[in-house]
Amino acid sequence: MKIGILGPAGTFSEDAAGLWLKGRNENLVEMKYYETIFDVSESLLRKEVDYGIVPIENSLEGSVGETLDVLSGENREEIQIVGEVLVPINICLLAQTFKKSLIKMVVSHPHALAQCKPFIRERLRGVEVKSVDSTASAAKIASQSEEIAALASKAAAQKYGLNILEENVQDYDSVTRFIVLSSAAAASGIKTAPTPTGRDKTSVLIYLKDYPGALYDVLGEFAHRGINLTKIESRPSKRALGDYMFHIDCEGHIEEEKVKRALEAIARKVAMLKILGAYPMAK
Amino acid sequence: MKIGILGPAGTFSEDAAGLWLKGRNENLVEMKYYETIFDVSESLLRKEVDYGIVPIENSLEGSVGETLDVLSGENREEIQIVGEVLVPINICLLAQTFKKSLIKMVVSHPHALAQCKPFIRERLRGVEVKSVDSTASAAKIASQSEEIAALASKAAAQKYGLNILEENVQDYDSVTRFIVLSSAAAASGIKTAPTPTGRDKTSVLIYLKDYPGALYDVLGEFAHRGINLTKIESRPSKRALGDYMFHIDCEGHIEEEKVKRALEAIARKVAMLKILGAYPMAK
Repeated sequence: MKIGILGPAGTFSEDAAGLWLKGRNENLVEMKYYETIFDVSESLLRKEVDYGIVPIENSLEGSVGETLDVLSGENREEIQIVGEVLVPINICLLAQTFKKSLIKMVVSHPHALAQCKPFIRERLRGVEVKSVDSTASAAKIASQSEEIAALASKAAAQKYGLNILEENVQDYDSVTRFIVLSSAAAASGIKTAPTPTGRDKTSVLIYLKDYPGALYDVLGEFAHRGINLTKIESRPSKRALGDYMFHIDCEGHIEEEKVKRALEAIARKVAMLKILGAYPMAK
Repeated sequence: MKIGILGPAGTFSEDAAGLWLKGRNENLVEMKYYETIFDVSESLLRKEVDYGIVPIENSLEGSVGETLDVLSGENREEIQIVGEVLVPINICLLAQTFKKSLIKMVVSHPHALAQCKPFIRERLRGVEVKSVDSTASAAKIASQSEEIAALASKAAAQKYGLNILEENVQDYDSVTRFIVLSSAAAASGIKTAPTPTGRDKTSVLIYLKDYPGALYDVLGEFAHRGINLTKIESRPSKRALGDYMFHIDCEGHIEEEKVKRALEAIARKVAMLKILGAYPMAK
């Protein structure tokens, strides 16, 4: 089995893949690393991998726009969500030195920098701040100069031989939700659409018709059937400012009668409805 | 009159301020530049400036999380939205050289890089991509090396003496919406809350009670009164994954009877309702 994730090795995506595999008792796995979320989705379509695991939202930073765009993108009809994984984020200050006073620059992914703003402001006063494309790249950069520190995972410290100066330096504890993607026909020919487990989630993408109350009407189809929504997120349709698509997650599996009926009713009311997947909820 | 915006000079924020001032026939204005959106909000509270102008959403990239967080932040009760400005985004490839083949690195703000992904992939093949904190900083960096190009505004080309190699290199045309912020008592003591013009928008922040259909009930108060929503955006409450606040913009001014009644009814149904401001719609 082959899994595509954001590289390099040592990012939080690797933790997510590890957690998901643990739940499935899978061992014979090859990890393939890609530079962008878009590239992970391409690798699925090219059947280079069986699964792709990508971040979709963080409890502090909100949604990952690139993942939402991949789900709504053209030629992405084959891609479906087959699972989710929750990864608690522990951001550490890593450096070659143990002396904080030697540090002149701190580097990390923009999301990690955003999550550590008060720490940087108060504990790294006067230090230059720089964005790079992943927390693992940040660790790699820090391993090349005594004056540079990285905000990255514990795993990255090990991988790049850095000291952990401080742990859990994020402003609030946070959790990142990753989704597991597969294409209708996976690389190895495994059937991947998950069957109901009794504790599932269904994700859909909706493009409303343009009339006042359109969103209200759609939510009514869930509310009247007592279906709980776990997420609703607007995302630009890329046509005009104020023109949105909606990503909605609801409790239940699409093979359950009430979920099925709700989605059938919604399909008649909207300009476009795409079922992104039905899969077991993460514990 | 003093206005606080994201610095350095030459960013799209400067275009936004220029457009807003044009509509008001204001001339005697001092621009003050800040590093972050958070710093602009602090300057309002410290009464260093009368107005702050910050980006809130782009028609391609979606919302600017830092601005939403400032609006929902603690100790930000005094800050209100008093206006909005729409700025069409024209991203240019800027460099010292006219020869694209000399360029080894392209730098820009992460949002601009995201908007120009296909251009970078197809027309700057093999060139290293680097995020910096603003499009104007990118132009400044490009002015220091022949091998570095920036994706930035036309104004930045002028400011940093760079050539415009290509214009409008973004994937799709996009518009950024900026909001104009003021604090209840501005630096100069000007009364800033806008009165109804007949074509207004009201922005609110809502924290729902936790029961299925809670969002549906809130939207009903708008729908039943025929009030159109121009935006609804979920944002992590920062308490737990799946716990959201909602930023909602509706048409109409809070001093209009139907808007007032809708918000009164909503206030009784939710855990928290904050009026962020009522202001004239941008043309």
